[in-house]
Amino acid sequence: MMQDIRAYMRLVQEETERALRRYLPKHAPDTLQEAIAYSLFAGGKRLRPLFHFATLEALGAERSIGYPVVAALEMVHTYSLIHDDLPAMDNDDLRRGKPTNHKVFGEAVAILAGDALQAQAFFALSDLLSFPGLPPAKLLVLFQGFARAIGAEGMVGGQVLDLEAEGKNIELDALEHLHRLKTGSLIVFSVESAAILGGAKAKEHEALVRYARALGLAFQVQDDILDVIGDEKMLGKKTRQDDIQQKSTYPALIGLEEAQKFRDRLIEEAKQALDVLTEERQSIQILFAIADLVGTRES
Amino acid sequence: MMQDIRAYMRLVQEETERALRRYLPKHAPDTLQEAIAYSLFAGGKRLRPLFHFATLEALGAERSIGYPVVAALEMVHTYSLIHDDLPAMDNDDLRRGKPTNHKVFGEAVAILAGDALQAQAFFALSDLLSFPGLPPAKLLVLFQGFARAIGAEGMVGGQVLDLEAEGKNIELDALEHLHRLKTGSLIVFSVESAAILGGAKAKEHEALVRYARALGLAFQVQDDILDVIGDEKMLGKKTRQDDIQQKSTYPALIGLEEAQKFRDRLIEEAKQALDVLTEERQSIQILFAIADLVGTRES
Repeated sequence: MMQDIRAYMRLVQEETERALRRYLPKHAPDTLQEAIAYSLFAGGKRLRPLFHFATLEALGAERSIGYPVVAALEMVHTYSLIHDDLPAMDNDDLRRGKPTNHKVFGEAVAILAGDALQAQAFFALSDLLSFPGLPPAKLLVLFQGFARAIGAEGMVGGQVLDLEAEGKNIELDALEHLHRLKTGSLIVFSVESAAILGGAKAKEHEALVRYARALGLAFQVQDDILDVIGDEKMLGKKTRQDDIQQKSTYPALIGLEEAQKFRDRLIEEAKQALDVLTEERQSIQILFAIADLVGTRES
Repeated sequence: MMQDIRAYMRLVQEETERALRRYLPKHAPDTLQEAIAYSLFAGGKRLRPLFHFATLEALGAERSIGYPVVAALEMVHTYSLIHDDLPAMDNDDLRRGKPTNHKVFGEAVAILAGDALQAQAFFALSDLLSFPGLPPAKLLVLFQGFARAIGAEGMVGGQVLDLEAEGKNIELDALEHLHRLKTGSLIVFSVESAAILGGAKAKEHEALVRYARALGLAFQVQDDILDVIGDEKMLGKKTRQDDIQQKSTYPALIGLEEAQKFRDRLIEEAKQALDVLTEERQSIQILFAIADLVGTRES
């Protein structure tokens, strides 16, 4: 299965790049175009598209209906990384083994490349309006769900909590809340949007959200763990940054071993949530494989 | 009429604040909520909502259908000001007579407040999907038109051109192109979105876009003029900043007097464009009054 999931990931990466190219701005100033492409095609894992496509697959829907969403997901994810790396934020010089956007294009252009990517994400998502058969009520839930997932009540809100937590000892549930907003909400949207587009029944929808919530958090716990025990070369960035920046992490709060156990429990929880689907759905193996992948990933 | 337009502007300001409150995030972290409200309710002129409501009015449409758009317009305009003022960009300390967002909340929160506002703008705009009677094809044009107007091919693209022009002598048509992107595209969208929602006929739509294009540029020329001869107290910001930052402006390129003539020609052009509407439409006085206002504004 691990062989299969690697092949599936390559397929997802190819289709995501195709989706991104379809929705890229065509007539932007050169510098901006370059700065956008630099980070957008920097070899990201395309984890969120993987979640999205795999969920569509599990529901027997065509991958092509997911193109607007996966482009939107990666554009927003990329913009958030560009802004996170800025000197005023995490001040990172390296990302995926390459100099960060502001190191190459300067701070002003990096801010603007991020801003443009967010706008372009909505450009991509809006293309769902050109797909026949999607009722306005569904699209309203999708569009507002996306805006909420990435805005003040989601990703950006989590980023603010993260800033505020620096140098402080925060409680475990405050840390969980922070991650559920900062990274969890977009991962949950990756799955939930596919549940909506793929026509999941209420029970399936609920199960898929539970799966995504558990894995989204597991992903973050693993991120914290990799910052302690990961390989800098594999990760393409410096480790031990959380410690230097005095960030609250799971290993720091509950110890490395407990953090690993917590991660494994979350992965189990995610898999169990899929029980509802197994009754009627055939192609959920990829969702299972992703769950295992989150626990074993090294980058 | 000038008395009337002042009263109408107050009405627009009230309705815009109502629209903004309707679509504000409700459960964001306190700091973020405060930083957003600080800039969003800082006494902006609500020029873009004025354009939008006045166009709806001219077409005999209800103002209420414009609420999602005016909230989106002001959220994006506000985010663009917050990011423009950042140290990496224009590095401004004052905006509308108050310390800029990053001066009060710090650079990181200011970046994130801007990011959240952009997401929230799409949250607001998406509410159009809950209005009955708007066909998906119209909404697609509206949503993608908005994303394009504020993204790499519009506002943000113009901002990049503006950065690149600093300290250089650029040509007159490069300056015009820059402004058409940086401020023009959102002003044109303010009018064009109302033309779409208000059911303008093809000829009217075209005329309204011509009106908005001319006035959008006139507005920017007046901005340049005010930076030279304006009153700091009225403007709520320092004048002569363009000179200090070595920005290309109309007064710098063609002289103050020629700039004033150019502005007046654009205002005439805008008014003439409305000729098409006068044949059948009654309530275009406000659009006329706005045109005059652009040329006489002191802040």
